[in-house]
Amino acid sequence: MRFLSDNSASACPEILAAMAAANHGRVPAYGDDEWTGRLDRSFSDFFGTEVRAFVVSTGTAANALSLATLSPPYGAVFAHEAAHIVTDECGAPGFFTGGAQLVQLPGEHGRLAPERFRAALAGHPTDLHSVQAAVLSITQATERGATYHRKDLTQLAEIAHERGLKVHMDGARFANAVAFLNCHPGDITWRAGIDVLSFGATKNGALAAEAVVFFDRSLVKDFELHRKRSGHLLSKSRYAAVQLLTYLESGLWLKNAERTNHLAQRIGRAAGPALLHPVEANEVFLRLGSERRQRLRTQGFEFYDWGPAARGEARFVVSWDQPEEDVQALCAALPRL
Amino acid sequence: MRFLSDNSASACPEILAAMAAANHGRVPAYGDDEWTGRLDRSFSDFFGTEVRAFVVSTGTAANALSLATLSPPYGAVFAHEAAHIVTDECGAPGFFTGGAQLVQLPGEHGRLAPERFRAALAGHPTDLHSVQAAVLSITQATERGATYHRKDLTQLAEIAHERGLKVHMDGARFANAVAFLNCHPGDITWRAGIDVLSFGATKNGALAAEAVVFFDRSLVKDFELHRKRSGHLLSKSRYAAVQLLTYLESGLWLKNAERTNHLAQRIGRAAGPALLHPVEANEVFLRLGSERRQRLRTQGFEFYDWGPAARGEARFVVSWDQPEEDVQALCAALPRL
Amino acid sequence: MRFLSDNSASACPEILAAMAAANHGRVPAYGDDEWTGRLDRSFSDFFGTEVRAFVVSTGTAANALSLATLSPPYGAVFAHEAAHIVTDECGAPGFFTGGAQLVQLPGEHGRLAPERFRAALAGHPTDLHSVQAAVLSITQATERGATYHRKDLTQLAEIAHERGLKVHMDGARFANAVAFLNCHPGDITWRAGIDVLSFGATKNGALAAEAVVFFDRSLVKDFELHRKRSGHLLSKSRYAAVQLLTYLESGLWLKNAERTNHLAQRIGRAAGPALLHPVEANEVFLRLGSERRQRLRTQGFEFYDWGPAARGEARFVVSWDQPEEDVQALCAALPRL
Amino acid sequence: MRFLSDNSASACPEILAAMAAANHGRVPAYGDDEWTGRLDRSFSDFFGTEVRAFVVSTGTAANALSLATLSPPYGAVFAHEAAHIVTDECGAPGFFTGGAQLVQLPGEHGRLAPERFRAALAGHPTDLHSVQAAVLSITQATERGATYHRKDLTQLAEIAHERGLKVHMDGARFANAVAFLNCHPGDITWRAGIDVLSFGATKNGALAAEAVVFFDRSLVKDFELHRKRSGHLLSKSRYAAVQLLTYLESGLWLKNAERTNHLAQRIGRAAGPALLHPVEANEVFLRLGSERRQRLRTQGFEFYDWGPAARGEARFVVSWDQPEEDVQALCAALPRL
Repeated sequence: MRFLSDNSASACPEILAAMAAANHGRVPAYGDDEWTGRLDRSFSDFFGTEVRAFVVSTGTAANALSLATLSPPYGAVFAHEAAHIVTDECGAPGFFTGGAQLVQLPGEHGRLAPERFRAALAGHPTDLHSVQAAVLSITQATERGATYHRKDLTQLAEIAHERGLKVHMDGARFANAVAFLNCHPGDITWRAGIDVLSFGATKNGALAAEAVVFFDRSLVKDFELHRKRSGHLLSKSRYAAVQLLTYLESGLWLKNAERTNHLAQRIGRAAGPALLHPVEANEVFLRLGSERRQRLRTQGFEFYDWGPAARGEARFVVSWDQPEEDVQALCAALPRL
Repeated sequence: MRFLSDNSASACPEILAAMAAANHGRVPAYGDDEWTGRLDRSFSDFFGTEVRAFVVSTGTAANALSLATLSPPYGAVFAHEAAHIVTDECGAPGFFTGGAQLVQLPGEHGRLAPERFRAALAGHPTDLHSVQAAVLSITQATERGATYHRKDLTQLAEIAHERGLKVHMDGARFANAVAFLNCHPGDITWRAGIDVLSFGATKNGALAAEAVVFFDRSLVKDFELHRKRSGHLLSKSRYAAVQLLTYLESGLWLKNAERTNHLAQRIGRAAGPALLHPVEANEVFLRLGSERRQRLRTQGFEFYDWGPAARGEARFVVSWDQPEEDVQALCAALPRL
Repeated sequence: MRFLSDNSASACPEILAAMAAANHGRVPAYGDDEWTGRLDRSFSDFFGTEVRAFVVSTGTAANALSLATLSPPYGAVFAHEAAHIVTDECGAPGFFTGGAQLVQLPGEHGRLAPERFRAALAGHPTDLHSVQAAVLSITQATERGATYHRKDLTQLAEIAHERGLKVHMDGARFANAVAFLNCHPGDITWRAGIDVLSFGATKNGALAAEAVVFFDRSLVKDFELHRKRSGHLLSKSRYAAVQLLTYLESGLWLKNAERTNHLAQRIGRAAGPALLHPVEANEVFLRLGSERRQRLRTQGFEFYDWGPAARGEARFVVSWDQPEEDVQALCAALPRL
Repeated sequence: MRFLSDNSASACPEILAAMAAANHGRVPAYGDDEWTGRLDRSFSDFFGTEVRAFVVSTGTAANALSLATLSPPYGAVFAHEAAHIVTDECGAPGFFTGGAQLVQLPGEHGRLAPERFRAALAGHPTDLHSVQAAVLSITQATERGATYHRKDLTQLAEIAHERGLKVHMDGARFANAVAFLNCHPGDITWRAGIDVLSFGATKNGALAAEAVVFFDRSLVKDFELHRKRSGHLLSKSRYAAVQLLTYLESGLWLKNAERTNHLAQRIGRAAGPALLHPVEANEVFLRLGSERRQRLRTQGFEFYDWGPAARGEARFVVSWDQPEEDVQALCAALPRL
C-alpha cells in the first residue's frame, strides 16, 4: 500500500492508447508535427485566453526553463522556502538562469502570505550590489497540499508586478488545485496575474509530459532557445504532445484530481488531530512520531518521513491509480494508532 | 515520401507494447524501479564489460551531460566541425559545462583524422591563458553517414589519453555503425578507449530514450547530479528504461539498423556520381544542384538541403519505418534526373 | 565627517610609494614577476605554515573564486544570512560556481552558531534531489563587527569537515579580527580548520588588492584557471602584489586595524544603550531611529542607514585614514542626541 | 632586451603621479567618486559623441563583460580565429555569457574580411537548433599588428547590423590603431558602426585600467550588473578612473602609441623579408626559424615563439617604456642573422 509519491503512479491507459494511436507514419520532427501544433489551441481553450504552450518531459525542466526565461542571471527569485525549486531540483534554477539567487520566505501550509512578500520585496535592495528582484514563483497547490484562492494570488501578483517582477506558477499539482477550488483554470492563472505556468500532468496520469504555458506571449522565443539548449526539445515530440492533448481534452485532468483529492480528504478526516495542514489536494501530512510511523509501516503502508527528524512527520500522497482499498485500510489504521 | 530525418519516424510497436506492459502499479519514482535497475546489467551484457548506464530523453541531453561530466568549465572539447554538439545543440555543451569551448576540426566524411587531431592537440596551449584540453568527442556513425573503424578510434583515443583527455562518443546512430562494421559493440567503444558513450535509440525505433553509458565508472556520481539539476531525471523512469531494455534485448537495435543501412546503400548506388560520402549508415548525401532537387520534390520526395547553399547538396535519411516503396521510388527517380 | 565605508578610504602612502618603487623596467607579465613570486613566501611567514597566495583586485572576486574552487555547480554553500556573499555580491557565488545555492543561517551579531550549523547540516538532504552540502563560509570579522574566537571556528570547521565540506573564510576585515583577538593569524585560520581565506587589504589601507590564501594547497590549479577565465589575472601583477607585500611586511595591516578598532570602540562606548553589537572591529551599529539619524546628518556626519527601515539602525565605519577629530566629534554628538 | 609583451611594461610615471594626487580623503566608494564620475564626459569628448564609459582592471574583463552584455547565452559570437577572446581568455566569453559559442573565421593579418564574414553569416542557421548569431567582435589593432580602415569596419558592421548582430571592438591596442591610421577616434568606432568598445590603456602605459565604452547607451544597466557580479566593480574606483582620465586627457595615449608604432616599424624594416605582417601597431612578427631565434636569444633578446612550432615564427612587442637602445640593437642584429 504505497503512498510514497504521485510520481510512483502508472500512466493512464487512455494516455498510452492515444500515444499508440499517434504511432504511425513519418511526421516532421522537433515539434513541427500536428499534435504539437495543436497544443496552443488546446491550452488556449482550456484557459479561456490565447496562450502559447510547450511540452517538456519533467517538472524540473518546466520550472527551471520558466525561470530562465523570466530572470536575468543576476536576478532574485522569491519563493516559499518549501518550494520544489528551492528544495528538490538540485540547483536547477541557478543552473538554468546562469546564477539567479533564491529568496526564500516562510509561510503557513506552504503558502506565501502577501504581506510577508510585500515586506520582503520592500526590504530587497535595488542597488547593484544585490541580485535584482525579478520573479515571484508561487506553487499551486502548495508543497503542503494547500491551495491559494484567487484573491491571494491576485494580491501576490499585484505586489510583484508593481515592482516589475514576473510571476511564475509551479503547477505540478495544478489540476488538484482547480478541482478543490472548483474554479475555472483561468481564474487562478491569467485572471490572477500569472505570467507563466508550469502545468503538471505527469503526477496526475500522464507518462512524462508537462507544459510550460505562457500567458505573456512575448517571451516565447527566448524560452524555445533555452529549451533546445537544455536538451528539452523532444525530437519525436508527438508522443509528449499527445499526452497533454489527451489529458486536457478527455477531462482526465479533472477526473483524476477529484478522485485523489477526495481520497486524500478521507485520510485527512481519519487522521484527526494528527493532521498538520488542510487537505486541499492529494497530499496528507500527519504528525505521528516515530513509533506510530513504525507501526503503520509494519502494517504494510509505505510513505515518506517528512521535515526535520525531530518533528516526526509523515507524508501520504494519493496517486490517480491508488486502489480505494489502500485508502480504506489507511483510514481504518490511523484511528487505531 | 519523407526522407527528412530519422527523428520523423514513429516508434517501434514492440517498444510501445513493452511500455504498456510496464504500466501497472505504483513503483518507486526517479529510477528506483526495477526496469531502470536492470539497465546496468543489460548494457553490461551488451558491451561485454561492466558499465553504468543511465537513461535520458534526448540526444542533446546525453551529449551535453556527458561533456559536463568530462570537462571542467575551462575545458576545451575537440570535435569535428560538423559534429552535432557543434552545429545542432544550440550551445548545449557550453551551457552544461559552464563555458567549455569547442575546438572544431575538419575531416573528410565527418571523420576526425588521427594525425590532424594529434597536430591540433600538440598546438593547443597548456598555459592558463587558454582553455584546457579536456575531451575528445567522436561521432559514430559520423554526421556524414560514415563510420570509424576500430583502429582509427583506438588511435584517436590513445592520442587523447596520452595528454589526459577523456574520450566521448556521440552514438546517436551507434547501432548503424555496429551493423555496418559487423563488429561487437565493445570493439568500437571500451576496447577502443571510449570512456563515455551517448547511446542513441530514439532515431532507430525508440520513442524518447537515449542512454549515457559509462565505461569509466568513476564518474557517475557527478553525472547523476548534473542530470538531476538539468531536469533530465525522469520521475516515471520505468517508461524510458523499458524502451532501452526492449531495444537492446529484443535485437531491434540491430534489425532496424541493418534494414535502414541496406536501404540507404541502395539509394547510394542508385545515385551514382552524385554521391558525396560513403554510405555506412542510414544517411545519403548527394550533390544534386537546385534544379534536380526541385524536380525530386515535385515528384513527392521530402528531404533537406544540406551544407552551403552554393553546393547544392541534399540529405536523405532512411527511417526504421520507411516503406520500401519510398526507397524503390527514389532509386528509380535518381538515375532519371 | 564620513563614516560611510572603509571602502571610501584613501590608500596608505606607504603602499603607493611601494608601487612607485616597483615601477621600473619590463618584467614578466601575468604574475611571473618577482613581486608576485614573493607572495607565497610572505604569506607563509605571516601565517606560520606553507600556503599558496594569489592576488585579485576585489573582495567579491576573492570570495567568488574561492567558492568556485571549493564547490561543484550543484553545491550548497552555508553562510550567515548577512554574509557579504549573500547580500552584497549581486549573485557572484552563483555565477562563479555555475549555480551553487546559498543556504542562509541566522545568528547573533553576524555569527554562525555551531549548534545551529550542525542542525542545518544534519537536516540538509544527501539525496540527489537537493544541492549537495559543499562549503561553509565564515566571515571574520562578521558583517556586524563581531569576531569569532578560535574555539568557535574550530567547532564550525569540525562539523563541516566531518561531512566533507570545505571551509572558506571571508576575511575582508581579517586584520581587524586579529587585532581584536590579539592572536596569531594562524590561530584563527589553518589551526582552526580554515581551508581557504579571502584576505582583505583594500579596506584597511591598500589600493585594490586582496589575497586568496590556500591552506589546502591541492586546489590551486583549478583556482588559477578560474581566476584567469573570470578576468582576474592581472597583466601587470607586480602593482597588486607589491601592495600585499607592503601591507604584510611593514606591519601596516596591524597598525591600521588597531587604530580603527580603537576608534570604533570609542564610538561604541559613547553610544551607550543604542549600541547593537559588540565592537570587535571597525564597525559600529546603533539603533537611533530616524529623527536622531537626521539630527546627526545635519551636524555633518555621513553614515548609512542599515537593516529594515522600521528598525532605525545606522552603521558607522571607521577608515584607516579617519581623522581622529571626526571620531571625537561623533563621540561628543552621540550622547547629546 | 625584453620584447615579450607590452604587458611587461611599467606604468607611466604621470599616471602614478595622478593616482597619488587623488590619494586624499574619504570619497564615496564603488564609483560614486568624482574621478569615476568624470569618465563619461572625458570619453565623450574623446570620441566626439555622447558615450557611457566604465572602468575595469583587465582586458579580459572588458571583453567578456562586453560580450555578456551583447549576447544571450545561446548566442554566437563571430570573431577572427586569432582573436584574444578565442585564444587567450581561458573561455571567459563562454563563462560570462553563460555559454555563447565562438564562430571563428580565418583572415589575413588577423583581419576579418567582410566578404568572408558575410558568407559565414549567411551560412549560419537561423533555426533554434543552432546558437543564434548575436555579436561580431573585431580586434583593432589586430592580433597580428595590422589595422582595419574605417571603410572595412563600416562594411563589417553593416553586414552585422543588417542581421541584428551587435558589434564589439576589442581595442586592447586601440591607441596604436588610431596613431597609425592618423584618424579621429570616432572614425573607427561609432562612425563605423561599433556598438561597444573595449578600450585598452594598460598595455600602453596605464597600471591596470581598461574602459568599456558604450556607443549604444541603452545597454549599460545590464553591463553594470554583470560587472558587479563578476567582481569587477572596484571599491576604490578613483584609482582606476584617474588612470584613464590621465591617459586620455594628457595625450599619453597618443604619444606612447606613436612612439611604439615607430619603433616597431623600424624593427619591421630591419627584418626585411622575414616580416610576416604589415607593422601598423607595436607588434612585429617574423619568420626566423629556430636557429635564428636561438641566436637572437643568445644575444640577449627576449621574445615569444609564435604560432605552430613548425613555422618558426617570433613575435616582438615594443613597450611604451622600451629603451630605444633595445630597438637599435635589435635592428642591428636582425640583418646579421
